[in-house]
Amino acid sequence: MEAEIISVGTELLLGQIANTNAQYLGERLAELGIDLHRVTTVGDNAKRLRSALEAAWERADLIILTGGLGPTEDDLTKETVAEFLGLELVLDEAVLERIRCFFARTGRNIMPPANAKQALIPVGGEALPNEYGTAPGVWVEKDGRIVVILPGPPFELKPMFEKTVAGKLRQRLAGERKVIKSRVLKLYGIGESHAEELVRDLIASQTNPTLAPYAKETEIQFRLTAKAGSEEEAETMLACLEEKVQERLGRYIFARDAETMPEVVGRLLSVRGESLAVAESCTGGLVADWITNVPGSSGYFLGGVVAYSNALKEKLLGVPASILREEGPVSGAVAEAMARGVRTLVGADYGAAVTGLAGPDGGTPEKPVGLVFVAAANGQRTVSERYEWRGSRLVIKRRAAQATLNLVRKLILGLQD
Amino acid sequence: MEAEIISVGTELLLGQIANTNAQYLGERLAELGIDLHRVTTVGDNAKRLRSALEAAWERADLIILTGGLGPTEDDLTKETVAEFLGLELVLDEAVLERIRCFFARTGRNIMPPANAKQALIPVGGEALPNEYGTAPGVWVEKDGRIVVILPGPPFELKPMFEKTVAGKLRQRLAGERKVIKSRVLKLYGIGESHAEELVRDLIASQTNPTLAPYAKETEIQFRLTAKAGSEEEAETMLACLEEKVQERLGRYIFARDAETMPEVVGRLLSVRGESLAVAESCTGGLVADWITNVPGSSGYFLGGVVAYSNALKEKLLGVPASILREEGPVSGAVAEAMARGVRTLVGADYGAAVTGLAGPDGGTPEKPVGLVFVAAANGQRTVSERYEWRGSRLVIKRRAAQATLNLVRKLILGLQD
Repeated sequence: MEAEIISVGTELLLGQIANTNAQYLGERLAELGIDLHRVTTVGDNAKRLRSALEAAWERADLIILTGGLGPTEDDLTKETVAEFLGLELVLDEAVLERIRCFFARTGRNIMPPANAKQALIPVGGEALPNEYGTAPGVWVEKDGRIVVILPGPPFELKPMFEKTVAGKLRQRLAGERKVIKSRVLKLYGIGESHAEELVRDLIASQTNPTLAPYAKETEIQFRLTAKAGSEEEAETMLACLEEKVQERLGRYIFARDAETMPEVVGRLLSVRGESLAVAESCTGGLVADWITNVPGSSGYFLGGVVAYSNALKEKLLGVPASILREEGPVSGAVAEAMARGVRTLVGADYGAAVTGLAGPDGGTPEKPVGLVFVAAANGQRTVSERYEWRGSRLVIKRRAAQATLNLVRKLILGLQD
Repeated sequence: MEAEIISVGTELLLGQIANTNAQYLGERLAELGIDLHRVTTVGDNAKRLRSALEAAWERADLIILTGGLGPTEDDLTKETVAEFLGLELVLDEAVLERIRCFFARTGRNIMPPANAKQALIPVGGEALPNEYGTAPGVWVEKDGRIVVILPGPPFELKPMFEKTVAGKLRQRLAGERKVIKSRVLKLYGIGESHAEELVRDLIASQTNPTLAPYAKETEIQFRLTAKAGSEEEAETMLACLEEKVQERLGRYIFARDAETMPEVVGRLLSVRGESLAVAESCTGGLVADWITNVPGSSGYFLGGVVAYSNALKEKLLGVPASILREEGPVSGAVAEAMARGVRTLVGADYGAAVTGLAGPDGGTPEKPVGLVFVAAANGQRTVSERYEWRGSRLVIKRRAAQATLNLVRKLILGLQD
């Protein structure tokens, strides 16, 4: 089954919101083994919507439209689809009653007259109940094609897809039985081209499963994707390819699938029953923020210090004034002293620290914007690394935070470069 | 000028990432007064990309393609565009040198051979420099149409658009002269429906300029949009409407346009020559992170403490053990003691603090997940506020960070509820 999505909404074209519905549906369709070939976004404009619909009709078996089901005049998705399919819109009394109830239930007793148009359904189509809003979805079939219309608000669309549409599609696919499964391997400490070089033959020789690299801001990802007749078969194909990739790139791989660097560090600390404290200068709290985004992080993260001023580095973290003076606040020696200092101050098993120049101003030829030192310490060892990045202030902060956590990970695991 | 965007990338269709590039470009094009009529997303597939390109060519004056400029074999945007336009790809020596330098500069001395293909530019096209990656963009014109190719990673695409493409488009538009200008008013401390009620007549009566409310996660925004023959005329229309909105909602408006809450607080501190320190529990560093995202924040932000454990609240911030025991760590009394404590510890003019339950676990009937206390202190006064939100851990962290900064703003300005 080949699918296309048509997203309707001028607010999408004006960039007022991101098209997260298309992302959500893309993920769900892939899980169902349905190939999504195209997403088209048009504004609240009947002519352009119709033209997108005509083109999709020629290519796809399944067309999902999102948005334009509201009560106002610029909501015209259902009307345009019905006209295109040559189907009359008729009032569905059961739906109308549901909309009236929705208003009663949410305490806005009387349904405004404009909402009645939401109860119009194309002849032969099926209304899909909306638990969180007034606009029902529509499932309609013609000439061997399925057209599904879903409401624009994600909190209405997602439950409708999950509770009704996914099941109907699964039934339809019961004959076909094709599963797509993906796995993501996350790498740190190697560039995209270099990583790709090391597995070029695997990329070239594979069509199923496939292997594709992506450069993210703070890591490199390899995505493995397998298409098979069953979950188990797809899993086996992925496992086999992953083994080959692990052989070549294993030392750079820090996580799989959805796991993030802070989660990896948290997991390593948790199983060891050890704790962490951080001292941040240029990242300004971002490392601690990432760590505490992980539920349960209070089990291993004690806290930290954002030492933006030199005075705080000296006073709270005990960085010797002589080092600050001689090496400068952006130096490996200061990063190491901060890591040791915060470990002692907080009484944690591990201390991590980062100091650098996030810019945009304040750089010099010797210490340019983007220069960052990260450090990590436990009772026995203190390690540090020097990085130099280009990028905006926020990009440098994020890269520095990732490098800090990666160094903690390496120290815990006893990894050397 | 009518524009279309073609986003290229299988990862978009699989829902692995949201198409934030299309959102960003949509916003920028609207600012330039360019009508974006369609966004089409296709995978890394030459045939389908070509078909999207052919269709766009029939409709648009400006086609912007994003993604598929990497060094790997599935990156084929430039190749497909060149073939479609009937233009040969030739090696641009200056670009090749820039890519080589990029590798040298980022400490990965030697350029892998695969990257050489990134230096291929269609004959007659212009390479657009990429400050943050190896793939240059391309600007090429043919038959009265402009085709722009931009790299997929947002941290490369955005600076390239801002520094090169926007300027070139503005030059091109200099003749046309229709201006769309927008203004955003940002509100805190009032709900969307209530805010909308207070200006309902203005929303209903206006078609140009328009007034539209948006509920964001940590604030309410009103967007004013005017279309006019000149910048000045549009400005006047906006100023007139803004005055009416200010009259009704002024006490809730904390910022205009792009200015964020941390920037507002930073500006207020800067002009007063005063300084700030923060003590964070449930936000885990996010408040400090937001503050330090603002360039120049080292001028007023001294630092802070992430006191995730009770021991740190006591030891570093001097919160009395008796208060922690009697009121519990999530309480107004502890928030106030933390604000005073960090102010003294760091030696700042203002101290801010936040403590709460971000969840997902750890809530009780008396202290549910989402309960948050924020506090702010200067030499004379300490103030605190109690909030109770619903939402995920990250949503609660962000709402708590915004509330903390808003309370600092109110204390600086001497505003009372």
